[in-house]
Amino acid sequence: MRVAVAGCGYWGPNLVRNFISLRGCELAAVCDTDGERLAEMERRFGSLRMLTDFEDVLADDTIDGVAICTPVHTHHPLAKAALEAGKHVLLTKPMTHSVATALELVELAAERGLTLQVDHTYVYSPAVQALRRIIDRGQVGDILYFDSVRVNLGLFQCDTNVIWDLAPHDVSIMNYLIDETPRWVSAVGSAHYGEFEDVAYITVRFDGALIAHFHVNWLAPVKLRSTLIGCDKKMIVYDDLAPSEKVRVYDKGVTRRSSREDRAQALVDYRVGDMHAPHIDHGEPLASVVADFQQAIETGSRTRCDGTAGLRVVQVLEAAQQSLKNQGEPVRLPAPVSSATSPAAVPATS
Amino acid sequence: MRVAVAGCGYWGPNLVRNFISLRGCELAAVCDTDGERLAEMERRFGSLRMLTDFEDVLADDTIDGVAICTPVHTHHPLAKAALEAGKHVLLTKPMTHSVATALELVELAAERGLTLQVDHTYVYSPAVQALRRIIDRGQVGDILYFDSVRVNLGLFQCDTNVIWDLAPHDVSIMNYLIDETPRWVSAVGSAHYGEFEDVAYITVRFDGALIAHFHVNWLAPVKLRSTLIGCDKKMIVYDDLAPSEKVRVYDKGVTRRSSREDRAQALVDYRVGDMHAPHIDHGEPLASVVADFQQAIETGSRTRCDGTAGLRVVQVLEAAQQSLKNQGEPVRLPAPVSSATSPAAVPATS
Amino acid sequence: MRVAVAGCGYWGPNLVRNFISLRGCELAAVCDTDGERLAEMERRFGSLRMLTDFEDVLADDTIDGVAICTPVHTHHPLAKAALEAGKHVLLTKPMTHSVATALELVELAAERGLTLQVDHTYVYSPAVQALRRIIDRGQVGDILYFDSVRVNLGLFQCDTNVIWDLAPHDVSIMNYLIDETPRWVSAVGSAHYGEFEDVAYITVRFDGALIAHFHVNWLAPVKLRSTLIGCDKKMIVYDDLAPSEKVRVYDKGVTRRSSREDRAQALVDYRVGDMHAPHIDHGEPLASVVADFQQAIETGSRTRCDGTAGLRVVQVLEAAQQSLKNQGEPVRLPAPVSSATSPAAVPATS
Amino acid sequence: MRVAVAGCGYWGPNLVRNFISLRGCELAAVCDTDGERLAEMERRFGSLRMLTDFEDVLADDTIDGVAICTPVHTHHPLAKAALEAGKHVLLTKPMTHSVATALELVELAAERGLTLQVDHTYVYSPAVQALRRIIDRGQVGDILYFDSVRVNLGLFQCDTNVIWDLAPHDVSIMNYLIDETPRWVSAVGSAHYGEFEDVAYITVRFDGALIAHFHVNWLAPVKLRSTLIGCDKKMIVYDDLAPSEKVRVYDKGVTRRSSREDRAQALVDYRVGDMHAPHIDHGEPLASVVADFQQAIETGSRTRCDGTAGLRVVQVLEAAQQSLKNQGEPVRLPAPVSSATSPAAVPATS
Repeated sequence: MRVAVAGCGYWGPNLVRNFISLRGCELAAVCDTDGERLAEMERRFGSLRMLTDFEDVLADDTIDGVAICTPVHTHHPLAKAALEAGKHVLLTKPMTHSVATALELVELAAERGLTLQVDHTYVYSPAVQALRRIIDRGQVGDILYFDSVRVNLGLFQCDTNVIWDLAPHDVSIMNYLIDETPRWVSAVGSAHYGEFEDVAYITVRFDGALIAHFHVNWLAPVKLRSTLIGCDKKMIVYDDLAPSEKVRVYDKGVTRRSSREDRAQALVDYRVGDMHAPHIDHGEPLASVVADFQQAIETGSRTRCDGTAGLRVVQVLEAAQQSLKNQGEPVRLPAPVSSATSPAAVPATS
Repeated sequence: MRVAVAGCGYWGPNLVRNFISLRGCELAAVCDTDGERLAEMERRFGSLRMLTDFEDVLADDTIDGVAICTPVHTHHPLAKAALEAGKHVLLTKPMTHSVATALELVELAAERGLTLQVDHTYVYSPAVQALRRIIDRGQVGDILYFDSVRVNLGLFQCDTNVIWDLAPHDVSIMNYLIDETPRWVSAVGSAHYGEFEDVAYITVRFDGALIAHFHVNWLAPVKLRSTLIGCDKKMIVYDDLAPSEKVRVYDKGVTRRSSREDRAQALVDYRVGDMHAPHIDHGEPLASVVADFQQAIETGSRTRCDGTAGLRVVQVLEAAQQSLKNQGEPVRLPAPVSSATSPAAVPATS
Repeated sequence: MRVAVAGCGYWGPNLVRNFISLRGCELAAVCDTDGERLAEMERRFGSLRMLTDFEDVLADDTIDGVAICTPVHTHHPLAKAALEAGKHVLLTKPMTHSVATALELVELAAERGLTLQVDHTYVYSPAVQALRRIIDRGQVGDILYFDSVRVNLGLFQCDTNVIWDLAPHDVSIMNYLIDETPRWVSAVGSAHYGEFEDVAYITVRFDGALIAHFHVNWLAPVKLRSTLIGCDKKMIVYDDLAPSEKVRVYDKGVTRRSSREDRAQALVDYRVGDMHAPHIDHGEPLASVVADFQQAIETGSRTRCDGTAGLRVVQVLEAAQQSLKNQGEPVRLPAPVSSATSPAAVPATS
Repeated sequence: MRVAVAGCGYWGPNLVRNFISLRGCELAAVCDTDGERLAEMERRFGSLRMLTDFEDVLADDTIDGVAICTPVHTHHPLAKAALEAGKHVLLTKPMTHSVATALELVELAAERGLTLQVDHTYVYSPAVQALRRIIDRGQVGDILYFDSVRVNLGLFQCDTNVIWDLAPHDVSIMNYLIDETPRWVSAVGSAHYGEFEDVAYITVRFDGALIAHFHVNWLAPVKLRSTLIGCDKKMIVYDDLAPSEKVRVYDKGVTRRSSREDRAQALVDYRVGDMHAPHIDHGEPLASVVADFQQAIETGSRTRCDGTAGLRVVQVLEAAQQSLKNQGEPVRLPAPVSSATSPAAVPATS
């Protein structure tokens, strides 16, 4: 497999490094319009084929796939061109800035029989894989709520708000872990330094009592990446910044009382038990991302985060954006994309 | 000063203990309809005058003030009767379950010239007092957002949801620290075990970009009581469960750029500096609550959390409840109660 | 059972409160030479029989047992007098300031057939009880080392050093958890404010490779109470100040390699697995202490921390003190006191 | 400046990466006897001149300096050969395995006028530099004690014990921060898996009451790198693993009382004040190490960790080793090496 990496800004070098380390893969070229960035890549990784024109990537028939790590507004045109040139595509998150363009890419890839993968890196992380396994095993029961906090100081983006920047991580994790279909999205936020919101809160409603909530914030003095997953048998805390025990499963819960003796009593009993933290590997998620891309190209397998998964994230983000403009008015999500392509169907790695 | 404590359930014994320790105060009686609770009080505190009928408290002309720690639905009738009997009243939170009843108490106390205080204990805590002083000094600048998380497992209430149970704490802290007037309230939540919400999120909007948000939750495996206060000069983390350094002030922030050289640059610069955690006393907040009650009765001073402060909290809670029923539709708050009675006007203790 | 509490300073009131709450026990008297302390006790607990002369306690034939919470130098004379007057005795830690006096009390209690218990409160704590059960179950294997840190700012004692003040806690925990016999003790320390050491390190050697080490410190800016217990199958962290998960069992370890291919390889392999934190009750240890005292008096049972257990702690402390004076020269401990009275033989409560 | 890196095992690649990034420096060669390691270096860094014979490095007159990252027992012969060949030398820690060989290298470098630097990386870390500045400013007062804990699981070394592996870090930090001369060293430890100690405790005594203590451990279930520095005006906690606020300065302390009213009172008063955590840069310490090496070669300046500093660390380690064999018997350190070369004389970078 021969791949090119387009875009050598913040994230591109990480993909370059992982493609270099990937057995059976050859990094055919790196591409950026900025010559200084290319020079920095060479200083760091030694001699590479460096291109400044994306057309040259497309014209090279020996290149099987392209990883696109450019600014989001260029994702749709570049990915479309690459798919039309017969290349498999790996797109950094978020997939695109609109449902319409994301859908177009999904359909185009399907027509051409090409792999379209979205690099929602967290879905490939050992911690999220462990969470999926814990949920699959049925020991924690049904999910009652999903509460996510991702806050830090900066980095303000120049062309988008905090929702499009940070929420793709958490929405992709939610989609990967919850098999239910999100129905309604609402969002509130505030912009303190310009036109783009730097603090925002998103709520996602499902059928029934399941609720998900996301706090994303560029203006926080401390860095937090923490998720509570309340289930009806056990409860989970996932703290991505914990140096160890990132995933902790608490044998705690609430049980409905069959009856209550008098009106002053609550309707529930509490159960408080042990805590268990499964060992989580230290493997780099991005190594799994590129390996998944390679396997899909070579075997035709579906990637864990395919275009449909990317689209489903964009659906939530677009709805959140619309709600944000209307003071939090709930926005109904479109009917779900084909469940046949639900990423949850892809088993977690063991 | 002679006081009675009505209600010897969860919170009452704490008030009894603090009135016993209060110099210049005599605990004239404790009152509860449950004889077993009274027996427990006697075992714990030695011999006390014990009454089972609140009328006997009202009829005792030597009693100056009554602390009412009964279930919330009894707050209005009991407090009304006490005020009508000429007694000063200290009410546990929340003041009442409706704006109308809270307002009636405020007006009644004003007419009779009696002290009406609400025991929003956190407002009297050394940590919140320190926060108020930090904000007053102007070193942190203007508040941009107020984000509060108060979650734990239980205790489910039998007659109310998690908003009425937990949010009074955080809304009273917000009101005490933010001098602006809240304008809009919205809330979403979910009830997993019966009719009352056990997870809820409340948003409060002010004029301008200031936003406040509250996560209250009875279904969390871990206990969190943490508030982020983003300001335009510095940023504050208040973690009420931290064994030390409950209040941490970060010299971090964002500054608008006067210009930006190219479109790809963000509009802001970051500033990252030292962290400072002021020493916080270990004093018991409830001791300050009862001392404030005593001083008000003896000198006619206004308490730090008077009836108006209690009413302002109930206004937010009632609006949140209404929004909750309408899927998060924003509810406009009534015009502010007289600013002459704004609790913010009462200086923090030094 | 009728008991008296002698000494109403720092610890005495806690014993008073627990004896008051103990079913089947009557607090017959409290005794202190300081009238002000007695007045404070009355204000807090209601009317009590108050004595200023310990002789009056001894002379009261209706009193079965005496809890002695006076300064350490008075432990021996008061306990001796109480035993000679036929009273059962509960002594706060450390038992006495010398092996000779501790031994005299043990022998006297045995002669008279009276209960002599030492209030090493931590041994009765739910966390230490959980540790004992974990070790007993054999899942962690043999103990390799025991490393304890107990540091905070103050409180400087006026008549003793930090070893006699803080180390009794950790030595009693070690003795309770480790069934081996300590053989050698060494200690180093430093006195920065007067004649008494405020920082000290104690090492205890057993037969074989088992080693225990204690850091006790009155001059630390943070409060730490943490113990590492390395075992050959699993490893334990016991953090007494953790709000939850005080005891964490790590499925980690080292295994000897049967062979090594080349000299550059280490001799061991590492095993890294899950972490498990058993639920620990919130019960007050002192309630178990007084219940144990009651049961011993009423049934003749041996207490979990009897005089022999107290003596074994004093043996280590006295040896540490001697080593301290000789720059850390190891001091050999005397032959163990009768194993028949080893506290480890008393099973942990389940 | 042209440099070679000898040894491409665990640490070598980090030096290679930093020399590549160092402006004004050319990485002339990498050398390792293991061809596979060299291949790995090429895969990672692109094409490099690769040598398998150290003699070829020595013979290359265009090479100014050599960084030696080989196993410790080879440090002395390789460094000696390099110095004799007129090359400046940067040695990884510990400098050598004996005072005699370390001293020989110091003297040889002095004779030849060559730079001999030891890569005690922590001394170059922003946190330790911040500590040095804090101490220099005099606000914390005199150091009373230095207590260091460095524990984790593994990595067992195949040819040395935990003291020689981990303690060089903490001893070099101590030497850099404390201007006093260490006088006595004692150490105890235990070997559970073979002949080399995996748990050890080292005590260092100075003139007066200043005491330092080190806990190093390969058998701990959790990773800790924490240092308490008690001073007579303020107190410091340095937690190298903290994601932020690695250095915290507590305005806490103890003051001697001029008199005490009665014997029961302690001799001291406590002072508890604010906590301050200076901002610490995220710069990579190794980048400062290689920059210091470059500057010394080009300007003749003395490095922050020269051979003398490395020797002083080895003196403590050798004494600790000797004490370890004698059950903790204190070992007197040799007279200090020339104070003219004390590393403390080199100012911290601001």
